[in-house]
Amino acid sequence: MPLVSVSDRHRDDLAERLPAAVFRDITPAYLEEPRGRYKGEGGLLLAPSSAAEVSTILRYANAEKLAVVPYGGGTGLVGGQVAEGGTIPIILSSERMTAIREVLPNENVMVVEAGAILQDIHTAAEAVDRLFPLSLAAKGSARIGGNLATNAGGLNVLRYGNARRLCLGLEVVLPTGEVWHGLTRLRKDNTGYDLRDLMIGSEGTLGFITAAALELFAQPAEQGTAFLVVESPVAALQLLQLARDHVGEGVSAFEIIHRQSFDFLSEALPQLRLPFTAHPEWSVLLDLGLGRGSDTTAALEAIFLDATEAGLVRDGLIARSEAQRSDFWAVRENIPAANRHIGAISSHDISLPLGAIPEFIERAGPALAKIATYRINCFGHVGDGNLHYNVFPVAGRSRAEHESERADIKRTVHDITHALGGSVSAEHGIGRLKVEDLERYADPTKLLAMRAIKSALDPDGIMNPGVILRT
Amino acid sequence: MPLVSVSDRHRDDLAERLPAAVFRDITPAYLEEPRGRYKGEGGLLLAPSSAAEVSTILRYANAEKLAVVPYGGGTGLVGGQVAEGGTIPIILSSERMTAIREVLPNENVMVVEAGAILQDIHTAAEAVDRLFPLSLAAKGSARIGGNLATNAGGLNVLRYGNARRLCLGLEVVLPTGEVWHGLTRLRKDNTGYDLRDLMIGSEGTLGFITAAALELFAQPAEQGTAFLVVESPVAALQLLQLARDHVGEGVSAFEIIHRQSFDFLSEALPQLRLPFTAHPEWSVLLDLGLGRGSDTTAALEAIFLDATEAGLVRDGLIARSEAQRSDFWAVRENIPAANRHIGAISSHDISLPLGAIPEFIERAGPALAKIATYRINCFGHVGDGNLHYNVFPVAGRSRAEHESERADIKRTVHDITHALGGSVSAEHGIGRLKVEDLERYADPTKLLAMRAIKSALDPDGIMNPGVILRT
Repeated sequence: MPLVSVSDRHRDDLAERLPAAVFRDITPAYLEEPRGRYKGEGGLLLAPSSAAEVSTILRYANAEKLAVVPYGGGTGLVGGQVAEGGTIPIILSSERMTAIREVLPNENVMVVEAGAILQDIHTAAEAVDRLFPLSLAAKGSARIGGNLATNAGGLNVLRYGNARRLCLGLEVVLPTGEVWHGLTRLRKDNTGYDLRDLMIGSEGTLGFITAAALELFAQPAEQGTAFLVVESPVAALQLLQLARDHVGEGVSAFEIIHRQSFDFLSEALPQLRLPFTAHPEWSVLLDLGLGRGSDTTAALEAIFLDATEAGLVRDGLIARSEAQRSDFWAVRENIPAANRHIGAISSHDISLPLGAIPEFIERAGPALAKIATYRINCFGHVGDGNLHYNVFPVAGRSRAEHESERADIKRTVHDITHALGGSVSAEHGIGRLKVEDLERYADPTKLLAMRAIKSALDPDGIMNPGVILRT
Repeated sequence: MPLVSVSDRHRDDLAERLPAAVFRDITPAYLEEPRGRYKGEGGLLLAPSSAAEVSTILRYANAEKLAVVPYGGGTGLVGGQVAEGGTIPIILSSERMTAIREVLPNENVMVVEAGAILQDIHTAAEAVDRLFPLSLAAKGSARIGGNLATNAGGLNVLRYGNARRLCLGLEVVLPTGEVWHGLTRLRKDNTGYDLRDLMIGSEGTLGFITAAALELFAQPAEQGTAFLVVESPVAALQLLQLARDHVGEGVSAFEIIHRQSFDFLSEALPQLRLPFTAHPEWSVLLDLGLGRGSDTTAALEAIFLDATEAGLVRDGLIARSEAQRSDFWAVRENIPAANRHIGAISSHDISLPLGAIPEFIERAGPALAKIATYRINCFGHVGDGNLHYNVFPVAGRSRAEHESERADIKRTVHDITHALGGSVSAEHGIGRLKVEDLERYADPTKLLAMRAIKSALDPDGIMNPGVILRT
């Protein structure tokens, strides 16, 4: 049965069932996404304050065949938070469920509502000398429910894993309105199917997350950072294993940076302090976080020495102060700003088996050169196999001149990624943007199983229709 | 439609579709489980050598409505590997899919077939100076497919997670015969629903795992062990956080041991060297694994000093040699043998929120004392909240005398566990043994969602019928 647009009658019906505070005036922000690719045409904005109210809304929506678009902080990059097309949906926002319910430092656990802002979760963890490691650029406005629904990644995945690995339990309202009380704080629980991980990463298509139990960690006592010039991407990957042979999980971050990043930074942000006079072809930013009494400088020196002897590293700097650590990290953190200044034609959020990264880099550049001449900025979380592989016009040309090549660029990058066993969405998800990519690249049996699960849990397809799976 | 028993006609049909080597003679081992609780009445033993052959078998079984019982190493403790009851099943064994296909130390990845023995995986990892951390008593015969199907736990969960967290990708044949080629080596991949984690822990009821990509780790360079006498279970948990403040993820194991364990060890294994002359009420075995150049003794001394000043620890020993480390660990590793010597009335594989462990211990003892007088041996992976809480007769009485109390004992322990937010199956799973427990304790919405998913992926209910969900 096709879904119907939400009407005044629906609004009146819901007003009889819900407190007035649930009804909020919609603003344009709810109908846009950060990159402006999707535009919503309206909606009934509902901001419930509890799982019980969410349940009331979803039971009603299910009975009336209304589309429901879950809304967290609105920071997703694949259009998962904005409906486009004819049917006007309920926009179901977590903005009134923002409580940090419990902080349990003795358990390394925090229990939060879905609307809690990621930055507020960080602050609450730090207040008890703990770390919640999920960290990403949008942390000041992203809400944890959205982070979990999209299995967010970010800077600390190498050491602590993505959102999935940081979640112990969930409270979720299913599309049919039943509430799953799965807010466990357990580390081990083998009692049936793993609904938690099924919900995480389902981008609001299988249910609405209302609360979560999160895992906290000890703050690393001693931190240190080195900027190392590596011989090649292969050498970078060997360096990662060498560093782990020294300090194991003490490797907190391992980011690769291509010369193009330095060139763009010089051009876009000339005041920024860069570590090397000559821009190295490939370099790595290596962060260690070790236990109390550890000497991070000595550990970095030992790694540097071994790596130099092994012919992996040809130059390098170890930060001698917190100020220098900040300077090193400022280089990495300002690359996206420099990229925006230059203006990418096409950006790609891909991941690869670690061993396939060098071959990807060798193949992708020449393949793109057959389309036109570009500048390529390749950088990112190489320790996770996650590259930002962004394509720019050469100096003097504009992205607009390459508009007609975008689809071809994307297809070229994604085809090579897929051929090498990689993923065309490492951390951003599918949303509405990559539905066709999923159909093109996903294993047919996976698609079949996903459709069967979607139908089983959301028989009328009301939850975030058009996201992940085509309606 | 009810399932039918496998017959000579089915065997003949399958013989036309499969090589002769797939057909194996069944032995009694396939119809028993380690504790002798379940007895199978027969079956057609099939040992395919590839996912394609598994697919042929499941397509046929699905068309003919034959029950299929997946079989790995046969070491599960909840009867998941043995069908009981009228219908004679196909027993689908992974024993001919034992290849270690790829070992990739530069990626910290190993790709194995489902029938690979856990110990062989350890050996292959060690050969390239890596660690595959999943470790359990049955590692010499357990097969990785079964470990993944049951989300096995064991000794190293505190640091490295359970089987779920050590798996990057899977190849699985669905009950309807389609092969999901999900053998990715990716660390980050947000392309749709998390089928991997849905299959892991589903105990063979949603598909048959044929291969897996596993994550490897660096071997910790420096290891050290301390045996510390703690004031109470609360103090033990505070000690864990204190140790993590010192060395973070460097805490490799954190096992609690009650005085009863030492008493049983003295009685059952009088030749065993025990660390303390007087048996302490509560003690903790703390293991550190740190990076190269680290001084584990200094780290343990610093932890001991801080913990003593904080009033958590009253006595302790730090192993001064590898031989002493082995002696310390021999105490922990011999507790199950001592327990078997004494003879438990009832054993429980429970987990609790860390903060609820002291209350559990305070409540469970007196509650059981209302049934009869027992000796309780409480020990285990307290860092994960996972306790082995085992109930024994007092000296001079036999377990047989308490047979009629077993159900009451189990119910008492499980009710208190559940009331405190715990799990009645921390690591062994549900199998056939705990189906009633699941029905009693699981969230109703979780059961509803699980049944919907089972029907969606296995519409005729052929895969491991009676496991997890009642048929």
